[in-house]
Amino acid sequence: MSSDRFVPHNSDFAQVVRESFSRQALMKTLGVTLAHVAPGEVHLSLPYSPAFAQQNGYLHAGVVASIADSANGYAAFTLAPRDTDVLAVEFKINLMAPAKAPTFLACGRVLRPGRTLTVCLAEVLAIDGADRIPVATMLSTIIIRPVRPGEP
Amino acid sequence: MSSDRFVPHNSDFAQVVRESFSRQALMKTLGVTLAHVAPGEVHLSLPYSPAFAQQNGYLHAGVVASIADSANGYAAFTLAPRDTDVLAVEFKINLMAPAKAPTFLACGRVLRPGRTLTVCLAEVLAIDGADRIPVATMLSTIIIRPVRPGEP
Amino acid sequence: MSSDRFVPHNSDFAQVVRESFSRQALMKTLGVTLAHVAPGEVHLSLPYSPAFAQQNGYLHAGVVASIADSANGYAAFTLAPRDTDVLAVEFKINLMAPAKAPTFLACGRVLRPGRTLTVCLAEVLAIDGADRIPVATMLSTIIIRPVRPGEP
Amino acid sequence: MSSDRFVPHNSDFAQVVRESFSRQALMKTLGVTLAHVAPGEVHLSLPYSPAFAQQNGYLHAGVVASIADSANGYAAFTLAPRDTDVLAVEFKINLMAPAKAPTFLACGRVLRPGRTLTVCLAEVLAIDGADRIPVATMLSTIIIRPVRPGEP
Repeated sequence: MSSDRFVPHNSDFAQVVRESFSRQALMKTLGVTLAHVAPGEVHLSLPYSPAFAQQNGYLHAGVVASIADSANGYAAFTLAPRDTDVLAVEFKINLMAPAKAPTFLACGRVLRPGRTLTVCLAEVLAIDGADRIPVATMLSTIIIRPVRPGEP
Repeated sequence: MSSDRFVPHNSDFAQVVRESFSRQALMKTLGVTLAHVAPGEVHLSLPYSPAFAQQNGYLHAGVVASIADSANGYAAFTLAPRDTDVLAVEFKINLMAPAKAPTFLACGRVLRPGRTLTVCLAEVLAIDGADRIPVATMLSTIIIRPVRPGEP
Repeated sequence: MSSDRFVPHNSDFAQVVRESFSRQALMKTLGVTLAHVAPGEVHLSLPYSPAFAQQNGYLHAGVVASIADSANGYAAFTLAPRDTDVLAVEFKINLMAPAKAPTFLACGRVLRPGRTLTVCLAEVLAIDGADRIPVATMLSTIIIRPVRPGEP
Repeated sequence: MSSDRFVPHNSDFAQVVRESFSRQALMKTLGVTLAHVAPGEVHLSLPYSPAFAQQNGYLHAGVVASIADSANGYAAFTLAPRDTDVLAVEFKINLMAPAKAPTFLACGRVLRPGRTLTVCLAEVLAIDGADRIPVATMLSTIIIRPVRPGEP
C-alpha cells in the first residue's frame, strides 16, 4: 500500500514535523533522528545503546514502542490541518524477534486518515549491515486536536 | 480481583525479581524503582523528568508503556518456575489522561497465569500529593521460556 | 474499582440502553440478553450454541468478542449525553481459556469516561453451575457521536 | 510484503485448511466462504445480512472481528506442521469505516511465522461493485499446539 494517495493540508508539513520532533525530549535522550518524512509516512532511526536495554541486553520493548509510537504520531501529523496537535489514544505492539542490532528503524504510515481519529501502522526493523529484520509491528489510534491558545 | 490466590513456585520470588530488575538498564536510565513485589503483582515507581517528555512536556507514551510493560513482565515473573525468563509477546495500552505529575506508579498484576503464556493488566497512576489519577491501562501477553545455558 | 462514582447524564439511561440493544440484530441472532444495566456497567448473557462454535466446538473468538464489544459499548452508552450514539473505534481481546460452558456472561465497565472517547474493560466469564471461569478480557476505545438527523 | 517467501510444511496445506474450515460452525452460520488459500495467506468472503448488524444497520464489529480472526488463524494454519492446531491468543482490531456493503472480504496474512507463536495481520474490505474500501485492520497472535489424541 503506497502513501502517494495522501495529500497534506500544509505544503510545509515536513518543516512542521521537524519543529515538533525537535521538542520531543525523549527522542533526543534516546538519540533518535528523523530519517524520512513524506505525506502519511515518517521513519525514525535509533542507534542501539546498552542504557536502553532490558535484562538480556535486548532493546527494551518500551523503547521499541517509543520509536514506533513517535513514527506513527508524526505520520498522522503530516496529514493534520494547521494549528492542530496529535496525541496517541492507544496502541498495540507485537514484539516479533529479539531487538539486538546496531540500529533500528521505525517506519510509521497512515492506514486511514480522519478529521478526529487517524489509524497508523508501524514496522520496526533491526538493521545490521545489509540485514533488515522486522522486530515489531504497531497498530495505533491517534487523535487530532486543535492547539489551545497559550499551548506550545 | 485479589492476587492472594496465586502461589509462587519459588519462595524467593521477590529476590529473583529484584535481581533481574537490577539488570534492566532502561529502568536505571529512567530512575525507576521497585515499589512493591507480591505473588502476581509488581509496582514500579518513576519520577517525572523532562528528559523523557514528548512535544508538550507530558511524559512520552513510550515511557508510560515502558514502566507498564516492566510491571506486567515482573508480575508474571513472580509466578514463573525457576530457571525461566519472561518476554513480552505483545501489549496494548490506552493513554487515558495527560501524563504530567511528579511521580508515576505502574501497578502490574496477573490476570491469568499459564505454563507458556501469562496475561497481565497494568494501571499507571499519576501521583501528585494525595491525588492518584489513572493515566493508562495496559493489557499484555507474556511468554515464559526456559533459560538456555550460557544465557544471563 | 467501583462504578458508583459515575453519574449518568440521563435519568432514563437504562431505558435508552434497552431500546438501542433491542435494535442490535446480531444480539438477537445470538440469543443474547441484557443481564445488568448500571451507570458505567452493563452485563450481557449468552447461551452456548454449537452454531457459533469454531473447529473444536469452543465458542468462536469472534462471538466472545461480539458480546464483550457490545457490553463495553453499552457501558459507555449509559454515561453518554442524550442524542448521541456510541461506536467502537477499536478493541483488543485476550482469550484466556477455552470457551466451553452452557452460558457466558460479558461484564463491561467504563474505566475512563470522556466527552469524545471512552475507555472500557470487559471480562467474559464461562458459567457452569456455580463455576465462573474468566475466559477473556477486552480493552476498548469507544467514540461518542451526536446522532445526525434522519439517523435511527 | 509478499507471502511468496513462506514455504508450508505440508504440500496439502490447502486441503487441511478447507477441512478445518468446514468444521467452523460459526462460518457456516454467517455464510462465509473460503475465497483464497496460499502459503501464509487466506481470504474469507462474507455476504452482508441484516441478522448480523448492530443498532445502525452496519455489520456488527464482532462479526467483522470474527472473519478477520478466522482469516488470520487460517493464514497461520497454512504454515503449521502436521498434527497441530491453531488458537487465537489475542487480537486487536481497528474499525476504520462503517461496515455497510453487499460483501466483505477478510484478507489475513502471516507477518512472522513461529514454532509456537505466529503473528498475522488482516485487512477487512467492504466490496460494493468495483469499490473496495478498507473497513478494519486486525493484528493477531496465534498459538500453534500439537493436537492431542482423541481431539477432533
